[in-house]
Amino acid sequence: MNVPYRVLSLLRDNGPLSRAQLADRLEVPRPRLLAELDRLVATGKVLDAGPAASRGGRRSTLVRLDPGLRFAAVDLGASSIDIEITNGGLDPVASYSETADIRSGPVGILGRVSELLHKLGAKGHYTRLDAIGIGLPGPVSFRDGVPVSPPIMVGWNRYPVRDTLAREHDCPVVVDNDVNVMALGERHSGVARSVEHLLFVKIGSGIGSGMQHHGRIYRGAEGCAGDIGHIQVETEGPVCTCGNTGCLEAYFGGASLARDATAAALTGRSPALAARLAERGALTAVDVAECATGGDTAAIGLIRTGGQRVGQVLATLVSFMNPSMIVIGGGLAGLGYLLLAEIRSVVYKRSLPLATGNLPIVMSELGPRAGVVGAALLASELAYGGE
Amino acid sequence: MNVPYRVLSLLRDNGPLSRAQLADRLEVPRPRLLAELDRLVATGKVLDAGPAASRGGRRSTLVRLDPGLRFAAVDLGASSIDIEITNGGLDPVASYSETADIRSGPVGILGRVSELLHKLGAKGHYTRLDAIGIGLPGPVSFRDGVPVSPPIMVGWNRYPVRDTLAREHDCPVVVDNDVNVMALGERHSGVARSVEHLLFVKIGSGIGSGMQHHGRIYRGAEGCAGDIGHIQVETEGPVCTCGNTGCLEAYFGGASLARDATAAALTGRSPALAARLAERGALTAVDVAECATGGDTAAIGLIRTGGQRVGQVLATLVSFMNPSMIVIGGGLAGLGYLLLAEIRSVVYKRSLPLATGNLPIVMSELGPRAGVVGAALLASELAYGGE
Repeated sequence: MNVPYRVLSLLRDNGPLSRAQLADRLEVPRPRLLAELDRLVATGKVLDAGPAASRGGRRSTLVRLDPGLRFAAVDLGASSIDIEITNGGLDPVASYSETADIRSGPVGILGRVSELLHKLGAKGHYTRLDAIGIGLPGPVSFRDGVPVSPPIMVGWNRYPVRDTLAREHDCPVVVDNDVNVMALGERHSGVARSVEHLLFVKIGSGIGSGMQHHGRIYRGAEGCAGDIGHIQVETEGPVCTCGNTGCLEAYFGGASLARDATAAALTGRSPALAARLAERGALTAVDVAECATGGDTAAIGLIRTGGQRVGQVLATLVSFMNPSMIVIGGGLAGLGYLLLAEIRSVVYKRSLPLATGNLPIVMSELGPRAGVVGAALLASELAYGGE
Repeated sequence: MNVPYRVLSLLRDNGPLSRAQLADRLEVPRPRLLAELDRLVATGKVLDAGPAASRGGRRSTLVRLDPGLRFAAVDLGASSIDIEITNGGLDPVASYSETADIRSGPVGILGRVSELLHKLGAKGHYTRLDAIGIGLPGPVSFRDGVPVSPPIMVGWNRYPVRDTLAREHDCPVVVDNDVNVMALGERHSGVARSVEHLLFVKIGSGIGSGMQHHGRIYRGAEGCAGDIGHIQVETEGPVCTCGNTGCLEAYFGGASLARDATAAALTGRSPALAARLAERGALTAVDVAECATGGDTAAIGLIRTGGQRVGQVLATLVSFMNPSMIVIGGGLAGLGYLLLAEIRSVVYKRSLPLATGNLPIVMSELGPRAGVVGAALLASELAYGGE
């Protein structure tokens, strides 16, 4: 057993614990535990934190993570940079977000990420970083720390993301796919806590998914497992950005929804969307959500149809994977109950009854924070010596 | 480390080994290994087998599995019972097959299985069984050793298959889904040896799949993972035996192929199939295969269309799971290269390029033996103390 990692992750997830509590939880002989704790204190990861409440016998002393531990969590989206600085227990001590076009390339984007991190350091949020975790919107070779043939990340193929950031910030760095990272966050401190077989579905500009089995990310042979946006839902269908026809993303996701909403506005099917288009010059998923809430039939129809398409793909995946829970996250999760109801209706109707009997399909609890929470968790796993 | 299990499985997979070779392979201190071997000899699982060839130093003695070890492997299909008796190294010492309708229920079928096993014992193929492994054509609760809501196994729901056979034969019994068992066989001694992420697809009367990650079967939350026969391939489509419309099995598999072949014969589209129907009164997949080989256009068309439907579902699963290899097995694998070519063509065209770049799609090597090989392996894992 990896005792140092177990100690550090217990302190991360539970806060300060007494030596006696740690010995109980880890089932390690007390002398070995005390020796390991001494080593962790010597490396500056763990501190003594005074006497614990008495349990009747000899007083035990509390240990806690060093309050100076700092992780940087970075979530890169198609059009956004989100950063959180956390302490060793993953509580946020600072956060920052801005828009940025991932297609402007790795030099510009990673340069900006480093600049933002240095600024947060200069403001006193950290003196040094213990690790950085970063999620990218595309397939990632986890082992090499590089994106691999990422469809929307023009110019990023095999760019050394991990090594670039590690050199710049002189700390270990871990890189993963953004949906895997969100799934990790949701399982660690969101709605999917301790779920055995988790299927996390991100519906944002595009659509992706991440799987976790007993808390371990499933990546597949080439690291691209979960890439469901280009699954074909109709043999004949609209042309997708990928060049194929009838992909899920050609039917739904932020980009397709904006396209369909604009069409509904221009053809007079939706007076509400037409008014917004005239006012703002362009439509997004937020407009569709608000018009649907306002009762606009066409907007409601767009969400329903999208939910059915997503449900159609998920019904297939549920029969195949038999997950314990499905969590829907990403920007379009904001479309709310109407979307969820449609997805549920198709999955519960179409999948194997045995696979849906005990299957919750729920919204993400962490919302837009899922990515940074997962990235911080990955960073801590690396720093604490997890696998 | 579970040393006894490691020793027994090494001897199973490699044949006799010297004590020195075992110590090398297991990286266990020699005194501990020798003590474990003594215990295995005392329990009658392992024998001394004389001196090993010299490696220059002190002569080491060979150890081997006791030649009297016996496993029974049972593969129940929709319409068949296949049995193999193996030694401890999984080499067959006797085998027997007969037709049987699974719908005649658990009492009749398991009674017949026990009768056949006792007969094989009476013929001297074993004196006692060390374990039985059995595959069933439906979802199985592996933990409880019972089928769970199996669609084609009328009357079998939660029947205590494991406990019935264990009582009757006074040995441990392990029960699993037939496709999981075939996948195990193929990975242990077929075409998929040591493949990391295996997707095994069985196309028989119905269609199912089994996954293995690093040699471990993936079962999902309720044990029904891989049940792909009722995935919807068309929203509007033929009615399936399950009551839904457009399921994969409503398009392809032995039952659908017989139906479509009969229609092709009766409507005059296939003179070759019509001639066979007139001669035999009914058509099966074998007739379609033979007429296709003979150049019959309609028969070729049936296999092509079926391959495309299977390919369509597999393309989705490949994007999602990103397997290292796909193996096609089951009775209809006999349709041969034409079927395989269609499946490959659709998967390679439709799935994510990163997921198909290094993806072999191949025929089962063990063919109809895959099930009993896997069932024997499961039995041995149980008897040797694997997880």
